[in-house]
Amino acid sequence: MAVNLNLPAHVPLAGVRLAAIAAGIKKDGSHDLVLMQLEPGSTCAALFTQSHFAAAPVRAARRHLTQSGGAIRALLINSGNANAGTGEPGLAMALEHCAAVGSALGVPAESVLPFSTGVIGQPLPDARLRSGIEAAGTLLASGAESVTDADAWMSAARGIMTTDTQPKISSRTVDTSGGTVALTGMAKGAGMIEPHMATMLAYVFTDATIEAADLDAALREAVAVSFNAITVDSDTSTNDSLVLVATGRGPALAPGSDDWRGFLGELTALCLDLAHAIVRDAEGATKFITVRVEAGDSIEECRAVAYGIANSPLVKTALFASDANVGRLLMAIGKVRLPAPQDPALSDALDADAIIVSIGDVVAFEQGGVAAGYTEARGAAVMAEAEITIGVSLSRGDACAEVYTSDLSHDYVSINADYRS
Amino acid sequence: MAVNLNLPAHVPLAGVRLAAIAAGIKKDGSHDLVLMQLEPGSTCAALFTQSHFAAAPVRAARRHLTQSGGAIRALLINSGNANAGTGEPGLAMALEHCAAVGSALGVPAESVLPFSTGVIGQPLPDARLRSGIEAAGTLLASGAESVTDADAWMSAARGIMTTDTQPKISSRTVDTSGGTVALTGMAKGAGMIEPHMATMLAYVFTDATIEAADLDAALREAVAVSFNAITVDSDTSTNDSLVLVATGRGPALAPGSDDWRGFLGELTALCLDLAHAIVRDAEGATKFITVRVEAGDSIEECRAVAYGIANSPLVKTALFASDANVGRLLMAIGKVRLPAPQDPALSDALDADAIIVSIGDVVAFEQGGVAAGYTEARGAAVMAEAEITIGVSLSRGDACAEVYTSDLSHDYVSINADYRS
Repeated sequence: MAVNLNLPAHVPLAGVRLAAIAAGIKKDGSHDLVLMQLEPGSTCAALFTQSHFAAAPVRAARRHLTQSGGAIRALLINSGNANAGTGEPGLAMALEHCAAVGSALGVPAESVLPFSTGVIGQPLPDARLRSGIEAAGTLLASGAESVTDADAWMSAARGIMTTDTQPKISSRTVDTSGGTVALTGMAKGAGMIEPHMATMLAYVFTDATIEAADLDAALREAVAVSFNAITVDSDTSTNDSLVLVATGRGPALAPGSDDWRGFLGELTALCLDLAHAIVRDAEGATKFITVRVEAGDSIEECRAVAYGIANSPLVKTALFASDANVGRLLMAIGKVRLPAPQDPALSDALDADAIIVSIGDVVAFEQGGVAAGYTEARGAAVMAEAEITIGVSLSRGDACAEVYTSDLSHDYVSINADYRS
Repeated sequence: MAVNLNLPAHVPLAGVRLAAIAAGIKKDGSHDLVLMQLEPGSTCAALFTQSHFAAAPVRAARRHLTQSGGAIRALLINSGNANAGTGEPGLAMALEHCAAVGSALGVPAESVLPFSTGVIGQPLPDARLRSGIEAAGTLLASGAESVTDADAWMSAARGIMTTDTQPKISSRTVDTSGGTVALTGMAKGAGMIEPHMATMLAYVFTDATIEAADLDAALREAVAVSFNAITVDSDTSTNDSLVLVATGRGPALAPGSDDWRGFLGELTALCLDLAHAIVRDAEGATKFITVRVEAGDSIEECRAVAYGIANSPLVKTALFASDANVGRLLMAIGKVRLPAPQDPALSDALDADAIIVSIGDVVAFEQGGVAAGYTEARGAAVMAEAEITIGVSLSRGDACAEVYTSDLSHDYVSINADYRS
């Protein structure tokens, strides 16, 4: 029951080959192991969870990125088991599986990045992973068209899912002076979502030729307003990973040009497609909510207020109930502890009388009280929509920020009381 | 369906007279206006919400505490309407109602503190409040025993309730060198609970004779480990208020003596009774959870980790489901951003391999992986209890802290999707 989740058509991307198979990790027998082979010379940028309990594959991937100098040739992803909270044996297993991929594809072990998602705290089924890697390697080595066509991309997007109800894949193109640049990316995630550096798992590819440092800068810029602006339940995964690969089959791009700005715009738009897709498919979601906070002292201040609203269980249950409960919005704004103001003339306490709160295009609160002309009926009409924008003006600066979230429904409780994540 | 909510027997307290009546603010016709008259010479300490949207009665109470120099003679409390988000008209009304109480009881308007709890963002029904104040004043002036007996205390505890399913009232005594000191307190609150200075509404009385500054110090010490250590849903009310009154009818107490330490111990125990009662009666609660974090660098660090666990929707749904989901505990610990360490040798990243996690008396995680001897069956047996202690050792210091919370159930969603708070 994802909320208006309709992604742009996706297209294959030159320089990436994909194999998705059922290795028997997930109990339902669906695809759960994906191997992505990258063109030699591809550049790679990656961001990982900031959790103190970063999972074994995250630790292994960080190590391999350093050891290989970013010369990554393969991404190994399994769903159904997160290989997190598994200590040194878990790390050893992640490294061994990279070595197995290296043997199968004829590339160094340290050019392979591993990723896992699913249950935390249980050992990976080693034998099933190894058999799966062998099968996927054989498929990739076959040279069949089935590892590069649109179906291969869709199979991979399905193969990385856990509680997702739909695959999340998006493609965009940029016209540059050197020709058309393509971008294709996929993501998974529906709960345990408040990534502070990345999201559950997301993989974005471009065929452009881009230096690794430039790619890293582009990724950080795009992530700030996309994956780092979503929250389902304020919970941050142990396995969040986001990878951006440039396969170098297309035009060369570098910062400072119009082409670069065009590329950055489309990269950000694609990351936003995928980040929104995660929220639209959030566990139990019935609504897609944009919280826009403006006229704040700093982006950090606006984000603090926006997350205060977006993570409030009382706001989220009111959204579920289509209850135009302005009081809960005031409560959620009121409870936020602000970062130190940049403007020394400002207090760290907000001026309640200056704040303006709107639901959709209906102004609900201003000048310290319910707005003139606001009626419950007008508020309720907006709250009944599946897409709702909550607007807040702090009336004390020029900064603004948006955060995207879902509502809190009975299905959220059912899914998480039943599912062992 | 409060969880094991059995408070100690309560007793009336000398120097306080109470009248609770139905003023017609609540739709169901139950008691919704409480007037508490205090002995002349009573001293008073109070703590209020830190919300940017502090409600009109909170603003009025702060003003009156200053104007009266703490010489408070009456507390006026209404439930059913929070008088929050009501701007200057709301503040004017709160002040006028204090004046009405002053007239009725023959005391200065600024010796009256007002409190409101209920729906946010709607004007108080002025005429009903005024009629109610008049009726309550007449009752208090009658000198009937019915304003000082045990029933009067229980009626008042019921009269301040909103979504509470049970009244919350507790009494304790301290034997001092000057005689027995009595303490009686009441609180309300079941949702919108993560008070940072106080809780929804709580009133604690002692018959001891205590200087106002000493009373304030005692209150802050007791609150730190009681009302400021509970969370239901991470949401902080606009109306949180906690008042401690010493009526001066009993022995004199001052800091530095054994008597004072005895008093402080019982005051803290009484605040903990009421704070726990709020969590036991939390909206939709089926379990009472203690999160104990020890061996941390600082109390702040321990509290940050404890709140990370206690406010995680994924942990709370697992608790509801009696699912011994150790992975979600690791996730919740992992996501916490720590305050800067006091010990300069420590990093702001936790050492995952050093952390020990237990559920009840069962060690579930240590040395970076699932603990030897831990089985799902042992974890599940503990998780099935109605009272669960989650223990975390950070293994990097001497500080510890406890936080108390409830689980996240279908009833929490139902209550908050249906109730207009």
